[in-house]
Amino acid sequence: MLSYTAQIRVRYADTDKMGVVYYANYAVFYEVARTELFRHIGFPYSSLEEQGIALPVVELVSHYHKSAHYDELLNVQVSIRQMPTAKVVFFYEIRNEQGDLLNDGQTTLVFVNMQTGRPTRIPADVRAAMEQYFTVE
Amino acid sequence: MLSYTAQIRVRYADTDKMGVVYYANYAVFYEVARTELFRHIGFPYSSLEEQGIALPVVELVSHYHKSAHYDELLNVQVSIRQMPTAKVVFFYEIRNEQGDLLNDGQTTLVFVNMQTGRPTRIPADVRAAMEQYFTVE
Amino acid sequence: MLSYTAQIRVRYADTDKMGVVYYANYAVFYEVARTELFRHIGFPYSSLEEQGIALPVVELVSHYHKSAHYDELLNVQVSIRQMPTAKVVFFYEIRNEQGDLLNDGQTTLVFVNMQTGRPTRIPADVRAAMEQYFTVE
Amino acid sequence: MLSYTAQIRVRYADTDKMGVVYYANYAVFYEVARTELFRHIGFPYSSLEEQGIALPVVELVSHYHKSAHYDELLNVQVSIRQMPTAKVVFFYEIRNEQGDLLNDGQTTLVFVNMQTGRPTRIPADVRAAMEQYFTVE
Repeated sequence: MLSYTAQIRVRYADTDKMGVVYYANYAVFYEVARTELFRHIGFPYSSLEEQGIALPVVELVSHYHKSAHYDELLNVQVSIRQMPTAKVVFFYEIRNEQGDLLNDGQTTLVFVNMQTGRPTRIPADVRAAMEQYFTVE
Repeated sequence: MLSYTAQIRVRYADTDKMGVVYYANYAVFYEVARTELFRHIGFPYSSLEEQGIALPVVELVSHYHKSAHYDELLNVQVSIRQMPTAKVVFFYEIRNEQGDLLNDGQTTLVFVNMQTGRPTRIPADVRAAMEQYFTVE
Repeated sequence: MLSYTAQIRVRYADTDKMGVVYYANYAVFYEVARTELFRHIGFPYSSLEEQGIALPVVELVSHYHKSAHYDELLNVQVSIRQMPTAKVVFFYEIRNEQGDLLNDGQTTLVFVNMQTGRPTRIPADVRAAMEQYFTVE
Repeated sequence: MLSYTAQIRVRYADTDKMGVVYYANYAVFYEVARTELFRHIGFPYSSLEEQGIALPVVELVSHYHKSAHYDELLNVQVSIRQMPTAKVVFFYEIRNEQGDLLNDGQTTLVFVNMQTGRPTRIPADVRAAMEQYFTVE
């Protein structure tokens, strides 16, 4: 399994009139976390795009358990449980500083060739960098 | 079934560097549509809050089929398929002007008493306004 | 003078924990209004981009007088007071349904040739469409 | 003078279809920087609110010099040049990793008593914490 925990400070801009983080913004937190996971394994997402590969989201699922509040420092754990092929499933768990689980969810992204606009396999160098995290039996 | 279609013009602010609507913003479009559905049946969401009732989202699911582009006029159809009790499930389908299905999804919201912070049943007047849309056999 | 008033419904997403519209979102309302002004004179901003012309903002000024609240229907008046040459200055006044002035501001945008990345003059067809609104003595 | 530099990583969500940070989001970066400045002097903005003091923005000015791009690490320097009384003026300079000045601006905020909704003087403890940064002759 490949896993990374990003820290995100809740901004005033993230809150809504209920006094807590607006529900759509958790998807932004997911984006930050998976970007940091890519950087962590040596493949900044921006370098993927330079290779002509995009990674659009095709599915988002999010469960809201407790509210996140202004100025809290959130731990956003992201993990990939299975070696990706043409798509990648990221799992997320967001906790506050007390360790309470506030939100969990997942996103499915597909590798797309920017020129053709069509799905493509995971680039060989990303595959190589990821494989060390998955037990191959 | 209770259904309503809201029209939303894609803003520059909604797009990202891929040139299309950023994935988290579909959840904002969902919010606009369900707000308009509540207004449509005579219960603006703001009047719910004045009654001391909040409706936080507990689950979000979204499937991305095709991209939405800047300045497109989207039709966001929202529907409630089953008479709500303590929770409401909204279903969404987003289409562009050509009628292509771009996105579908659902959100589950729960009625919460703002004072106690606890789940509560659907307020009687909202229930009365909604019941006409559902066949009771 | 060229003027247009767009109507914008305040979304839950626009609010912050102070219970009112978050200050950065007024700039988004400005964008919506100037987009509609361009459409109003027959030059959707998207058609400008298709001509290879971008209109980035170089200056933003915003004064906050009163708060805008959730679900309010705002009138966002945008006007161009002087025939643009290489840059366009847009003036904005945002009022609520009671006619209270909530915010006023201005943005300066420059015409940029997307290929060269350099400032350019206003395209001839946009100029022609705009000139009728300005008295030439 | 009181000064602080916050680091902000540009998110995909921050960009627009021009491929750069959307202009309204600089105001969000300003918010992050001034929040960190308050924390730096020992007065988290959230503790101000707990004292019943809000700090709404009454004026925003922003100049856009060069674009900020996805995944860049921005240095957002915020400073207070004059000891605040009933209002605080924050100045901002945003630079990329190469040190290029991308944006500068300022925001004026006023201390407001949340109960009365009226302007108030800077709280004594915040004043005490700030005074050490300003030469009193």
